Order: sequence, then structure tokens, then C-alpha cells
Amino acid sequence: MPTQPTLTPFIVMDIVRQAAQYEDAVHFEIGQPDLAPAPSVRQAITEAVARNRFSYTESLGLPALRERICQHYVDTYNVNISPDQVLLTPGTSGAFLIAYGLTLGKNDVLGLTDPSYPCYQNFAAFLHARTHSFPVEADEQYQLHPDALHDASLQALQISSPANPTGNVYTPNRLEALIHTCAERDCAFISDELYHGLVYDTPAATALQFSDEVYVINGFSKYFCMPGARLGWIIVPKKQVRAAEIIAQNLFICAPTLSQYGALEAFDHSYLAWVRHEFQQRRDYLYAALADVFDIATPPQGAFYLWADIGRYSQDSLTFAQQLLSDTHVATTPGVDFGHHHTHHFLRFAYTRDIDHMAKGVARIKSWL
Amino acid sequence: MPTQPTLTPFIVMDIVRQAAQYEDAVHFEIGQPDLAPAPSVRQAITEAVARNRFSYTESLGLPALRERICQHYVDTYNVNISPDQVLLTPGTSGAFLIAYGLTLGKNDVLGLTDPSYPCYQNFAAFLHARTHSFPVEADEQYQLHPDALHDASLQALQISSPANPTGNVYTPNRLEALIHTCAERDCAFISDELYHGLVYDTPAATALQFSDEVYVINGFSKYFCMPGARLGWIIVPKKQVRAAEIIAQNLFICAPTLSQYGALEAFDHSYLAWVRHEFQQRRDYLYAALADVFDIATPPQGAFYLWADIGRYSQDSLTFAQQLLSDTHVATTPGVDFGHHHTHHFLRFAYTRDIDHMAKGVARIKSWL
Repeated sequence: MPTQPTLTPFIVMDIVRQAAQYEDAVHFEIGQPDLAPAPSVRQAITEAVARNRFSYTESLGLPALRERICQHYVDTYNVNISPDQVLLTPGTSGAFLIAYGLTLGKNDVLGLTDPSYPCYQNFAAFLHARTHSFPVEADEQYQLHPDALHDASLQALQISSPANPTGNVYTPNRLEALIHTCAERDCAFISDELYHGLVYDTPAATALQFSDEVYVINGFSKYFCMPGARLGWIIVPKKQVRAAEIIAQNLFICAPTLSQYGALEAFDHSYLAWVRHEFQQRRDYLYAALADVFDIATPPQGAFYLWADIGRYSQDSLTFAQQLLSDTHVATTPGVDFGHHHTHHFLRFAYTRDIDHMAKGVARIKSWL
Repeated sequence: MPTQPTLTPFIVMDIVRQAAQYEDAVHFEIGQPDLAPAPSVRQAITEAVARNRFSYTESLGLPALRERICQHYVDTYNVNISPDQVLLTPGTSGAFLIAYGLTLGKNDVLGLTDPSYPCYQNFAAFLHARTHSFPVEADEQYQLHPDALHDASLQALQISSPANPTGNVYTPNRLEALIHTCAERDCAFISDELYHGLVYDTPAATALQFSDEVYVINGFSKYFCMPGARLGWIIVPKKQVRAAEIIAQNLFICAPTLSQYGALEAFDHSYLAWVRHEFQQRRDYLYAALADVFDIATPPQGAFYLWADIGRYSQDSLTFAQQLLSDTHVATTPGVDFGHHHTHHFLRFAYTRDIDHMAKGVARIKSWL
């Protein structure tokens, strides 16, 4: 019996590399904003370089940044957390290692929705934990129903809202119901809130509004437009602070220092409002442009993804995406990157480039179809 | 039976925090250079900020940086490797996750020396692998002997040279013999070469001089003076390139982008020669200053650590270090952070501050003793 974990490739990263070979490529594959971070962030990093801020920080992160993040929870959600509970991590990737390291033992089971972010199951596999996938449906806005949890014995449940790849946002009621069901079943609740801020119709609730015992993950890669800074955070229950710190000390030493100095200036409300407005316009454009050629359940409510049913053209999303890329140099991500449930006839479109760029892609797609 | 991995705290990080409370602290505990990176590095990062280099890079890292690292192996060791084999990682910490993920299955065994860098065993524990410690002795310059490998069944062996905490450097013959013994026993050889460059008597050999099938880890945190940049690299055997890339895609997405742009300019030979000279002077000072109060087997040959036997004063290095810190505000790292073999009567001194700073600490220690 093989004991080595089997990880699946993150297909989109391969597509990114393939698309990079075409000078005239149109990019719907890339899950990162093309917008720069706020000017104040760039200035803060430049100053940190001038001051030789090249040392490690505390493993938990700069105390001032952990306090600033607490303030963000007060301002945004009216939720009080303690800076002690906040750990800065190397991207949200590092936050998942902490969350899963704290909640999943060997052979324990992590609950996921299908579709979901593909790395979740690979983080679990890397730690020799198992996963249980719950299919979610378009007519439920891709939200997991608490009743589904009765079908499985889980040690942790991973939810994301706004979600990658569907762009769905959990209603506060649904989120609260899931958290309570998990608590009753002694199942840790891990809330991926990386796309918070990028919501276009109603605000997203944080899991911390409903419980102090949840694990909340967020970071600076999306809304704050700093993906390459590799800076995320995790908020852990108070009883887990020391155990989380020990993982961070050993696995990371600390998050990147210059990124942390930059992030201190990232909470620039007027800049962030502009970022959100920009993505909302892109969403509105792309939904309208594609709604007549693909089946899209509903305008995506958040993140910067559109989950399009291509079933009228193909039942093989990988081949479809590869063919589209080869023929038209339009890069998309095949649904199969995100799970098994209907994913063979879905594509994920990231609306992370400006409307002129997207319009070129839409024209090529329509003429190709 | 608990299935959750048990990680031990990295004691030095706790001492760093405690020492930070004393304004007049003398720091021998910190394993990071106080020197800035080369001016060219700082300029490159500032330019990258101005050009809005905030996107992800390829998971493997910037192609130009991977080529630059290959050139470094030609220049330094006359060894040819392919850029495909080089992955940039979030610190060498990320490189260990890749190396151990590739070579250790559940319950497999990693061989380590005792003493050694404490995170090695915690990375293994995090992945539900086991460790086997081989005691190493002062009169063997803290080098593992290949014969010792016959006592254990290992899937991988972790060696570091120059070593933390002892400062020992493996002779090329000993390194080659270990690599050949591992190959015969189908045991992966993982070479931590993070302190290469910081060698004061003879150059250190890279494991790649003796085999293409080894895993070599290095990074920009020590010799290149960029610890907060969190940028390491790993060179993997050609047959493992794709598996390593899949781990990197899933666990990291990529290493910090600004750090990678800075690292492109880090191979500044005249600056690095100055860095080495600076640390050599510090080593010469500290060895001479402490040799009459502690037992130090031999002047440390590399890294920036001195491994001092305090047996004539105490058999409890943790209490000794804590008392020394409380009484005199001199911070050191207790040997017990690094293993079990004689570590209860050793302290690690990092000579990472200038001689004037160290002289204050030495005077306080001598008067306290």
C-alpha cells in the first residue's frame, strides 16, 4: 500500500504557463487581480526597504499588523477578536497548513463542497487526512445544506464564501446553521474568507459573527491586490493559540517581512472601494456577455469568478479548455480542476482583466463556438 | 491513540520574544545576520515595487532566478544542474516541506543527527513521519559516520553542513561516503546547505558534487542576509521535478515575488566576500573570548554559531539560559532546543551582532559566572 500522499496538479497553474507562450493571449484563467495594491502599500514597502527591514518578524507576525487586522474586524463586521488569536502566514496557503494541522489527525476526514478550491483536498492529502465531498447545486446557490453533514463523520468542515470557483456567497443564516451543526457534531469549522470585500450585491458574513471557536482564513492576495506578497492570516480559537504558534515557528519561522510592512497600509477604504467597484463592473460586463452562449445559473455574487455551464457544447471541460486555448489563445480554467460534480461541463472564467481585454476574448469565443 | 502530530516549540523563538522586552539585551540567540543585503538587492526590490510586481510568479519561481542559481553552482562548485530542477520556496522552510513530502510516506523514518536544527523533526512529525536520531560527537567534529546508518532503516537522511547548532562542516570525503551509503540503502539524501558561503577555514562541498539524485536545500536568509524575504530554494532529482512542482503549486502557489526580484541581484561577489569576512572576524573574536570560560571543542568552521559546553557550571541548559537572560539580559539558546545528546549542558551562541555588542555580553557573562 503506498503511504506517499497523492496530490493532483493544480491545472490552472499549468494553463497559466501555456497561455504565457501566446503574446495575444486573453486571460480568463488567472485568479489574481491585475490591479496594483494601494499607493500607500507600495510606499510602505519602499520605506521598509530603505530602513533595511530584512529581519524575521515574530512568528505570529508584526504586532501592529495583528492589531490592525483586529480593527478591520470591528470596522467591517462589528466583531471583537484579540490580536493574540491572529497569525500572519505565508499566503493563505500557510493558513491552511495551520488550520488543517490543528484540526486533522492522520486519517481524519475534512468535509469539502464539490466544486471547491482544488488545493483544499491536496493540503489534506499532504497531511495524510481524508476528504469527504458534498455536491452543491446551482439552484441552492452552491451552498452546502447543514442536513448533508449527517451523512458523514467529519473532524473539520471547509467552507469558502465568496467561493472559488462559483462566486457564491453564503447567506448569514446558512453560515450560522452550518456552524451550529458542526459545533453539535464536534467538527471544526474552517471558513475561507479570502474573497471578502469582493462582494457586489450583499455583504458577506464572517464566521466569527456566530462563534468564537471557528478558524477564519483571509489574506492580502485578492481584495487587497497583493497576491505576490504571499501574505495571509488566520484567526484561531483562543485555546489553540499556542499550538498554532508552534506550527508557525516550525513550518514558516514567519511571514515575509516586507509584505507585512506593506500590509500595514493596505486598509485604505477609498482605494478598496474603487477596487470593488472595478470588479463589479467587470462582473456585470462578463455575465451579460456570456449569458447568451453559456448557461450561468445566476450572476456571481462575489469573488471574481464566473462558473459557466458549457454542457450544450461539450461534456469534457478539460479538452474544451485546451482546444479553446490552442485555437483562439483564450485561456480559461476547466471545471475539472475543482472537483467531480458536473465539473466536466463547466468552465471557470476569472474576470481579473479589464473589460477591453475581456471583450477581445468574448468575441473570439463567440466566433469559435 | 492520538493521531495529531506533536510538535515541540522552537525555544529560540520564545527567547527572542522575551529578550525583546529588555532594552539593553545582548543578543546571542538570533540565528539571522544583522547585516543588510547587498545594495543591489534593495534597489531591485524598490524597482520591482515601482513596476508593480505584485503578481504571482510561476510556481517554480522566476525563470531568470532559477538560471541565476544554476550559474551559482557552476561558479561555486563547478557543478551543472538544470533550471528545471530548481524550485524557489517560501524560505528554506518551504523547501523542507517539499523534500520531506517527496521522500517520506506516513510512518517512514527520517534520519537526523543529534544535535541538529529542531524544525527537522517537527516537519517530519507534521507529516506523520518518524525520526531516528544519530548522536554525533565533538571529537568527530560532529559529523555522522556512514557506519551508523547500518543501525537503522531510513527512507531519508537529513544532513546539514555547515551545521546549526555546532558550526561543523563535513569534509568532502565524509559527505561523499554518506551519500554513497544512502544510495546503497535506497535512502534519500537531503542536504541542508543554507550556511554555505559562511565558511572560514575550508570551502564546503555541495552534495551535488557527488550525486545527481540528492535533494539540496539552500536559500537567501543567511549568507545573502535576507531572512525576512522568506526565500529558499531546493534542487530535486530530475525524476522528481513534476512531483515537486505539484507540491509547490498546492502548498505555496509561489514564493514571494518581490523577494525573487531582489534575489536576482543577490549574487554580488564583492559584497558577499565582505559578509563572510565580517562573520569570520566575529567568530574569531567570540571563540577567543569564550574559550577560557566554556569548553569549546574547536573553533566553529562555518555558519554563525558557537556550541559551548557549560558542563562545569550547569547540567540544565534551559534553566541556565533563562537565568542568564533574567539576571544579565544576555540572550542565548539552550542546547536542549537542538536534541538530547549532551544538549543539557550546551548553549548555542549566535555571533550575528557586531563585536562591540558581543563584548558587552561577554563581560556580563564573565562577571555573572
